[in-house]
Amino acid sequence: MPPNANSLCYEITNQQTKRTRQHNLETVLNEVLETALKEVCSLHVHARLPEFKLGLVQLAVGTSKGDNITRAVTMVKQAAAAGADMVALPECFNSPFGTGYFLEYAEPIPGPSTEALSKAAKENNIFLIGGSIPEKGSDGKLYNTSTIFSPDGTMIHLFDIDVPGKIRVKESDALSPGNSLTCFNTPFCRVGVAICYDIRFAELAQIYAQRGCKLLVYPGAFNMTTGPVHWEALQRGRALDNQLYVATVSQARDESASYVAWGHSTVVGPWGDVIAKADHEEKILYADIDLDRVEEVRTMIPLGTQRRHDLYKVVDLTESSQDPGDK
Amino acid sequence: MPPNANSLCYEITNQQTKRTRQHNLETVLNEVLETALKEVCSLHVHARLPEFKLGLVQLAVGTSKGDNITRAVTMVKQAAAAGADMVALPECFNSPFGTGYFLEYAEPIPGPSTEALSKAAKENNIFLIGGSIPEKGSDGKLYNTSTIFSPDGTMIHLFDIDVPGKIRVKESDALSPGNSLTCFNTPFCRVGVAICYDIRFAELAQIYAQRGCKLLVYPGAFNMTTGPVHWEALQRGRALDNQLYVATVSQARDESASYVAWGHSTVVGPWGDVIAKADHEEKILYADIDLDRVEEVRTMIPLGTQRRHDLYKVVDLTESSQDPGDK
Repeated sequence: MPPNANSLCYEITNQQTKRTRQHNLETVLNEVLETALKEVCSLHVHARLPEFKLGLVQLAVGTSKGDNITRAVTMVKQAAAAGADMVALPECFNSPFGTGYFLEYAEPIPGPSTEALSKAAKENNIFLIGGSIPEKGSDGKLYNTSTIFSPDGTMIHLFDIDVPGKIRVKESDALSPGNSLTCFNTPFCRVGVAICYDIRFAELAQIYAQRGCKLLVYPGAFNMTTGPVHWEALQRGRALDNQLYVATVSQARDESASYVAWGHSTVVGPWGDVIAKADHEEKILYADIDLDRVEEVRTMIPLGTQRRHDLYKVVDLTESSQDPGDK
Repeated sequence: MPPNANSLCYEITNQQTKRTRQHNLETVLNEVLETALKEVCSLHVHARLPEFKLGLVQLAVGTSKGDNITRAVTMVKQAAAAGADMVALPECFNSPFGTGYFLEYAEPIPGPSTEALSKAAKENNIFLIGGSIPEKGSDGKLYNTSTIFSPDGTMIHLFDIDVPGKIRVKESDALSPGNSLTCFNTPFCRVGVAICYDIRFAELAQIYAQRGCKLLVYPGAFNMTTGPVHWEALQRGRALDNQLYVATVSQARDESASYVAWGHSTVVGPWGDVIAKADHEEKILYADIDLDRVEEVRTMIPLGTQRRHDLYKVVDLTESSQDPGDK
């Protein structure tokens, strides 16, 4: 082997060795960085991030399911670009509201709508509360189901507590009641989700609060009769009773629809004050959820320690009742 | 005996007989009428009178206990003269509000204040919810106690559930918590009474509703911080959750007092709508309590039958929990 060749070979070998060393160093550095990052993240999970931005998509839902999904995904992206860490869609975001629509628009889960939401959550690195969709259950029944996605696109919860027999459109004619209620953890706080009419049941919110939720999100669609009188009053009631944030997210109003939604997606703070409120048109509503404020209010008025559990008690009878939350 | 005399005697005898007969007839008629009246009343007790007038005395409470009592009794009389069937006084109607006053103004029950109320209820033939007074208990402790009087002057209930440790004036420094909660029956409906801060505990109102109350009365005294944000919102919350009437009755505002009350005694209907509201000055506020409206709202939105007792339940742990109410 000529010296040049040898030299070349040496150079190549040397370069390979350097590259290998460099690669090894990069690998080690990456591992160190990854470990450090994980520890920082883990620290945040334990310490909780004290504030986050919530985006509520008051979507104008039309009769094209495909368009509804595309529009929802676009607005989720907008919200994330504006800094939202968590985004929520309204009840029935992919379908007009009404018993006449549910069978036609229903789909299994997973299905096209939830797959689009999973992708949107992952692409935008956000928590996504997928409002609700009419679900075609494996038992052949229809459910009004809320799905939730973590920033890696995983569906972290299916929620279908919605009660039957409502006045709104007599959903019970078309939809079956669910039997689960849970909440999900985020690096910010534990969050409870329930659908629309459920906001009338103080017990449900009380149980979520018992489980440590600091934010309750109600995708909903009150109508033009109950909306003006009950929508905000119920949210303030739930927030005041439990000293936490309450958000409602409605479809935008469509005067030509068979069911005309009140709109007015709202965020109420733990002091019972309205901190953000939409009108009835399509809009993304933002609110900063300040978890220190929750603690501040609970210190000012310590309902938690003053509640007379010797005289009354709200009891959680669900299968998941053993989950004490992380208050 | 001369004929005339005989005749006279006959006349007298005859007249006596007629009088006796007349008396007997009157007696029989009275008995019949009385029985009929009792049956009608009894019918009303069962069928319930569908409407009654409630009077809330937003009393200007001063530092003279005697004057406070006299003023309260005068305004109760005025309310009754205006047609009120039930009258309520504010929390601490005989004493300025504040821990510094309670020991000085406290008295046993029965005592001068409750005796004056008993007399006022009887003289005006009304149900009288005596707000509250600082009570000197037989155990030497102080309680914030509400007394209630039926139209015959009988004290039908003592109520002292009020919780300790409030932000307002740290009542717990001076007052001890009570351990009872009940409600009382009237020919109109069952009525639940709780004091001020208790309105923050949704469970208490839920239990009263479970026991069949159609009206909850909260003698209270929110302050200038919590009053504007919480006072009406909490009442609307309690009314909406339980689909019943909620009344609050406050002292009038005294800007020179150590504790400045918000005033604004209010009546909220079962639809969650404010049906009567005072400003902050001394006033008697009236509201017609329409029990048909309660049924109407409960038929429109049948929360009672839709509540998911398989998932959650509010449990009454008091000694009187066996009392199912008369819904």
